[in-house]
Amino acid sequence: MRATVLRSPGDIRCEEVAEPKIIHPTDAIIKLSASCICGSDLWPYRGLQPVGQPMNMGHEYCGVVTEVGSAVKTVKPGQFVVGSFCLSCGTCANCLGGWPSSCVNREFMSGGQAPFARVAWADGTLVATSSMPPEDKIPSLLAASDVLGTGWYAADAARVQPGCTAVVVGDGAVGLMGVLAAKQLGAETIIAMSRHKSRQELALEFGATHIVTERGDEGVAKIRAMTNGIGADSVLECVGTQESMMQAINAARPGGSIGFVGVPHGVSLDGQMLFLAQKNLLGGPAPVRRYLPHFFDLILSGQINPGKVFDLEIELGDVAKGYQAMDERKAIKALIRLH
Amino acid sequence: MRATVLRSPGDIRCEEVAEPKIIHPTDAIIKLSASCICGSDLWPYRGLQPVGQPMNMGHEYCGVVTEVGSAVKTVKPGQFVVGSFCLSCGTCANCLGGWPSSCVNREFMSGGQAPFARVAWADGTLVATSSMPPEDKIPSLLAASDVLGTGWYAADAARVQPGCTAVVVGDGAVGLMGVLAAKQLGAETIIAMSRHKSRQELALEFGATHIVTERGDEGVAKIRAMTNGIGADSVLECVGTQESMMQAINAARPGGSIGFVGVPHGVSLDGQMLFLAQKNLLGGPAPVRRYLPHFFDLILSGQINPGKVFDLEIELGDVAKGYQAMDERKAIKALIRLH
Repeated sequence: MRATVLRSPGDIRCEEVAEPKIIHPTDAIIKLSASCICGSDLWPYRGLQPVGQPMNMGHEYCGVVTEVGSAVKTVKPGQFVVGSFCLSCGTCANCLGGWPSSCVNREFMSGGQAPFARVAWADGTLVATSSMPPEDKIPSLLAASDVLGTGWYAADAARVQPGCTAVVVGDGAVGLMGVLAAKQLGAETIIAMSRHKSRQELALEFGATHIVTERGDEGVAKIRAMTNGIGADSVLECVGTQESMMQAINAARPGGSIGFVGVPHGVSLDGQMLFLAQKNLLGGPAPVRRYLPHFFDLILSGQINPGKVFDLEIELGDVAKGYQAMDERKAIKALIRLH
Repeated sequence: MRATVLRSPGDIRCEEVAEPKIIHPTDAIIKLSASCICGSDLWPYRGLQPVGQPMNMGHEYCGVVTEVGSAVKTVKPGQFVVGSFCLSCGTCANCLGGWPSSCVNREFMSGGQAPFARVAWADGTLVATSSMPPEDKIPSLLAASDVLGTGWYAADAARVQPGCTAVVVGDGAVGLMGVLAAKQLGAETIIAMSRHKSRQELALEFGATHIVTERGDEGVAKIRAMTNGIGADSVLECVGTQESMMQAINAARPGGSIGFVGVPHGVSLDGQMLFLAQKNLLGGPAPVRRYLPHFFDLILSGQINPGKVFDLEIELGDVAKGYQAMDERKAIKALIRLH
C-alpha cells in the first residue's frame, strides 16, 4: 500500500510500504475512513525534532476493524472504531485511574496517514460506535482521536467550570478545539488570542466571546484589563514555546489554572517564578480514551461539529501539499481522503 | 525596645530598635504573646539570600492589639489576634477570591521577633479570637500564623482527599505540619520522608502511617513500591531545592498533585519533563488568612496541637542560640518568649 513517510525534515512522501499485520495478540488492524495531519507532525517536518530514520507519519485515525489478534475481546472486525494517539493497555493502575495517556505500557500511534494501520493494545485503546456512523460525521469522529481530545484536555486541565473566564493561547486546530471544549464545559467568557482572520472567525463560531490580537506582555495586559486586573480563571496553552507558556501563566489569575497541551519545545520554568505566580499547572498528552464515549454522544447527536476544523481536504498522494499548507499556515488542518 | 536584627549572614542580634508606630490608617500595633523562628529565616542567615541592609526578623506572630489606625474596623485594642505572614488588604479581587497571599497590595510581615510589631492592612490580615485564649494554646495559635498554614496549604494544593495516599517531602516544621494537615484532610496513608529520629517520632504522632528514610531516586522507588508502582495521589513539597522538587514530582502518580511550599531556591523545571510527568503543580505563599477561622476551631477545641512542633523555647535575648540550633538541625523550631 502507499503511505506517508517523512525521510528527513521537509522531505515528506507518499510511497509504497508493507501492509500492516498483527504482531501481538493484543493488536488490531483497521481500514482508516480518513486521516489527517497534526500540528505536532510539523515539529519533525520543520527539523525542530530529530528525524533519525524514515518516520511512518500519522497518529490520528478512525475506521473499520478488519482483523484482531487472538487476545482482543472488546472490538471485532466490521465495527467502526476511534482510538487515541496514545495506545494504552487498559489494565494498569494508570489506565484504571483514568490516565490512559500515562499508561505504564504506553506506545504512541504511528502510520496513520495510510489506508490501513495496526493499533497496538486494541482493547485499551479503541472504542466502537454502536452502529456505522454516517459519512458526514467522519471528520468529527476523526477529530476525536487527538485534536478534539487534546483541546478538551486543555480545558479540563485548566479546570474550566460553568461561569468561568477562559483564555485560549494558540489559534491552531488544538486551540480552536479548546474554545469548543471551554464552551461545552460552561465557560461564560472565552477569550481567543489570535491574529488570523479565518481562525478568529472559526473561534467565534466555536464559542469564543472575545478576540485578543496582542501577544506577550501586551496580550497579558489586555487580558488583565478584561478580568478585574488579575487574570483569567482558566488558561489553555496550545502552542508549546517558552513565549506561549509564559503568556499563558501570566494571563491566569492567582489560584487559577493553566492546562498546557502544546508539546513543550525549549521550555524552562523558574521555580521561584512558579511559586510567586501561585497558579495550578497541569499538562501532558491528553487522556483521550477517557473522553471518547462522551465525544461520541456529542458528535453523533449533532451537539458539536469539531470536523469543521478541517479547512483543507487532500488525496493521500498529495500529502506533501497538506504539510506545506499547514507549515505555511495556509490551512488550519488538512484531512486526508484515503479510499 | 529590644528586637531581632540580622546584620549580615550569621550575624543575628537582639538589639535596641525604635518601638513600632502606626504609619498608615490601616495599620495595627500588637503586643506579641510569643514569636518564633521560621525555616525561611535561615535562608538569609545562611547567606543563601542576600542581606542588603539590617533585616528586622520575624514574620510569625500572635498577640493582643494595643492600637489601631483610624481606618481599621474589624479589630480593636484588647483583642487577641493572629495574622498571616502575608499582609493582605482584604478588598482586592484576589483577597475576595480566596487568595490573600496574592493580594495586589501584598506586603510581607517583618519585625515579629520582638515584643511589639506593626501589622499593615490589619482588617484584611488579622483575625480575632472570640475571647482571650488560655496560655497553653499560645504556641498552637502562633503556629497558625505561618508554619501550620503553610503545611496545610501544601496538603490543600496537593489535593489531599479522604482515603488518598499522601507523601511529605521534608521533615522540617512545615513538613511536620503537612503531615498533621494531611491527617485532618482525611489521607489514609501518610508517608513521611525523614531520616531523623526525633522528627520521625513527631511525624508519627501527627499522623504519619509510614516513614521512608531514603531520598532521591531511591526514595522515589520506595514510594512507588508502596503505591501500585505508579506513585502517590498527593505529594507535599516542603523544602525548596531542585532535588526535593524532583523527588516530589517523581513520587506523585500521573494525574496526582504536588503542593510546593518550600520557597524554591535555584529550582528550574524543564517543560517537556513536566508535560510527560502529567502531574498537577501548585505552590506559593500560603493563603493563611483563608484558613485561620478553621484553625481557631481546631486548636481551641483541642482537636489539633500544632504547638508541639516547638521543641525549643528561648528568651528574646538568646535569639541567636535559637537560630544556631535550627541551623544545626538540633531544634525543629524555636519559640521565643517575649514578656
